[in-house]
Parts: sequence; C-alpha cells; structure tokens
Amino acid sequence: MSSTRRKPESPERRDVPTVVVNRLSLYLRELQHLVREGRATISSSQLGKLLGFTDAQVRKDLAYFGHFGQPGIGYRCSELIDEIRSILGTDRQWTVTLVGVGNLGRALLRYRGFTSQGFRIVASFDVDARIIGSSIEGIPVYSLARLAEIVRQQRIQIALITVPADEAQQVADQLVIAGISGIVNFAPVTLSLPTEVSLVGVDLTTELEQIAFSVANRIATR
Amino acid sequence: MSSTRRKPESPERRDVPTVVVNRLSLYLRELQHLVREGRATISSSQLGKLLGFTDAQVRKDLAYFGHFGQPGIGYRCSELIDEIRSILGTDRQWTVTLVGVGNLGRALLRYRGFTSQGFRIVASFDVDARIIGSSIEGIPVYSLARLAEIVRQQRIQIALITVPADEAQQVADQLVIAGISGIVNFAPVTLSLPTEVSLVGVDLTTELEQIAFSVANRIATR
Repeated sequence: MSSTRRKPESPERRDVPTVVVNRLSLYLRELQHLVREGRATISSSQLGKLLGFTDAQVRKDLAYFGHFGQPGIGYRCSELIDEIRSILGTDRQWTVTLVGVGNLGRALLRYRGFTSQGFRIVASFDVDARIIGSSIEGIPVYSLARLAEIVRQQRIQIALITVPADEAQQVADQLVIAGISGIVNFAPVTLSLPTEVSLVGVDLTTELEQIAFSVANRIATR
Repeated sequence: MSSTRRKPESPERRDVPTVVVNRLSLYLRELQHLVREGRATISSSQLGKLLGFTDAQVRKDLAYFGHFGQPGIGYRCSELIDEIRSILGTDRQWTVTLVGVGNLGRALLRYRGFTSQGFRIVASFDVDARIIGSSIEGIPVYSLARLAEIVRQQRIQIALITVPADEAQQVADQLVIAGISGIVNFAPVTLSLPTEVSLVGVDLTTELEQIAFSVANRIATR
C-alpha cells in the first residue's frame, strides 16, 4: 500500500458529504474493472471520463482523504483500490444479516457482488415456518424470534431490511436492541433510529422517478 | 392543483442537482404517507424533521421549482403531492420494461411500489426458453429477440436492466436502437450510452459501503 496518504483528523472526515462517499464506490468499481483488464495506472481525467465526471471532481473527492497519485504518472490502480477500501472501511470483512426472505431478500442473498467487496451475509431471518431451517446460497434462514441471539452470537454488524413496510420499524428496533451498528433499509418507509446506528434507505422507485424527471425535462442525467 | 407554482424556464431546471431530485422523491413519499394518515397541512420544519433535514433545506429544494406553501399554514399536503408529481413527471403514466428475469428481475416485477407512483411494467424479456411465454404478476416474459418489436409496439419509455454485467451493454445498445428514453441499470457495470438517453445506475453494494464508511468512522449518516 502507498504511504503517501495522510490520515485526516476525525473532525474532517465527519464533514464528508454522502455523495462523495457514493462516488468513492464508483471509483473503486471502475478501478477494479481496470485492474482486471490489466491496467496499471490512470490519470484523474481518464478516470473521470470513464464515469462522466471532470478530472477536478475526481481530485477534489479524493482530496478529502489525503494526497494520492503522482505528477506524470497519475494513480497506480491497485494502490488507489487499497486506499479507497481503507477509507470506506471495506479493507476488512463485515458480517451482515438480512431480515425478510421474500423476493427481494432472495435476490440479495443470491447477489454475488457483496462478498467480493467485503460483505459476508452470514444469517437471514423470516417468520415463514416453511422456509425457517432451510438455506439459500449456503446462508441459513432462522426464525425471527432468534434475531437478538444470533446477531450477538455471530457478531453481526450490518443488517439489510427487506420486510414489508409495516414491519420494518419493529424489525429495526429489534436489531438496535441486539446491538447492530448499521442498517440498509429496502422497505418503503422512513425508519426512526437512535443516532449511533447508521442508516441508509434504499427506495427502488426513486431511481425511476429520477429517470422520469430527466426524460420529462429532456435532461440527460449522468 | 395549486396555481401558485411558477413554471421555471428550462435552463433553470437543467441545473437541478440529482440529490435535489432524489429528495423530492423522499418528500413525495412522506407526504403520501401523511395524507393516508389524514393530515391536511404541514410546515417545512415538520416535513424536514420527519426526514432528518432542516426546514431551510426543504424550502431551498422546493424553491428550484417555484413558490409553494403559505405563511402560517405551511404546505397543503395533497397540493404539494400534485406539484411534486408534476415536477418529477410522474403525474402521467410511464410504460416500463424489464430485461433479465433472474432473481432481482423477479423481485422487481413483483414489487408493488412502482405502479402506485406512475410506473407500469408492461413487458419483460429473457433468453431462457423455460420462462419465455410465461408471465409474472400478469407481466408477460418475451424472448429477448423480440425486444425492438415490443418496445416500439407498446411505446415503452423506460427500461430496467437486470441482466448479468457482461450482457448489460449489449442489452442497453438494443434498447437505444429500439428508441428507449431512459434506463435504470442494476447490472454492476458502467454503461456507455448516447447523451439523449437518460441513465441511472443502481449499485446495491454502494449502500453497504456507505454504511461501512459511516460505521468505520463512527458517523451516523442520515
């Protein structure tokens, strides 16, 4: 790993906008793709161009976290991958659970992209007696009644909520009591959580509305 | 519908940041929830508080599109719903298709949230002969070979791509040739499209990385 990155003080990192963190994910995925294609280095303008951003945007985003790259060379792809994973905290393994093994839950349990990025789903929960005791992609489906027990036992840090909207808050409350650190909520409802638990809401209709807005207003969004 | 909204000139609307459009979706969903609970009016600070934003943020976001609300009353919920749907372009019906009837594709075909927000999935496509000719939630599964024909015939405007990463660009190219206006891409790959076609990429790992970043840095994201 490169040693050129200066660790910022924590007050700085608290000010990083969510959109910058989201773009780090995009940079990471593009760099991983480039490395698989055998690419060793890339400039900020080339990286930006691949993703539809300016070179200034790429440099500004990375500048939140230190100094990267070298004049005349650009970024070494594999080093920048390590740096971004370190920034995101995905240079370590995260243990994840999923609550609600319906259609979306099954799709996420079968999604292969999580593991390669450091997220390992180790348990899932449902209330349907027909599937409790089974496993999907090797991930056991437990009774929701065992949530707190298994979250503690397996030291699960992050939960994906894929239950119906009217059950999501109750599930979230149980996860908080069990000591979860972060929740990704796919249920179409706004959750209320203590501030020490991180929350990201995923609303699948939002992306469609964004497209509708841009088509209706004849704007190409990138 | 309220007549207090001033239609902005199109150059203004071109400058609306994506994050503002995303927040309009959040406001819309919260307002719809409030109306279902029988609420008639709400202030910007109350609406903001429910979603974790300041009242200034709510007012600034809406100010991109005109003047809403009245002093001492706030916003009339049902009027603001109509206004936001008009801004987003979801006051009309959009015809949608889905390409790739795997796990995620099935979950999206069965997702009930799209129709209520103005998006009607009318056709889906796959290459698997075992499911071509069947239907899921009343939505027919066609052979991918018939994509252009059916997109044109049914005047489909928006496509959801849920095929594997290495097939996504080819599917996108076919959709563009067929005359699609917008694409929501769930495949974990960056697509290259002509600028007149709107594109939103959905990367399910990004949300997990956002949570990891915030947990690793002990920041509560809201």
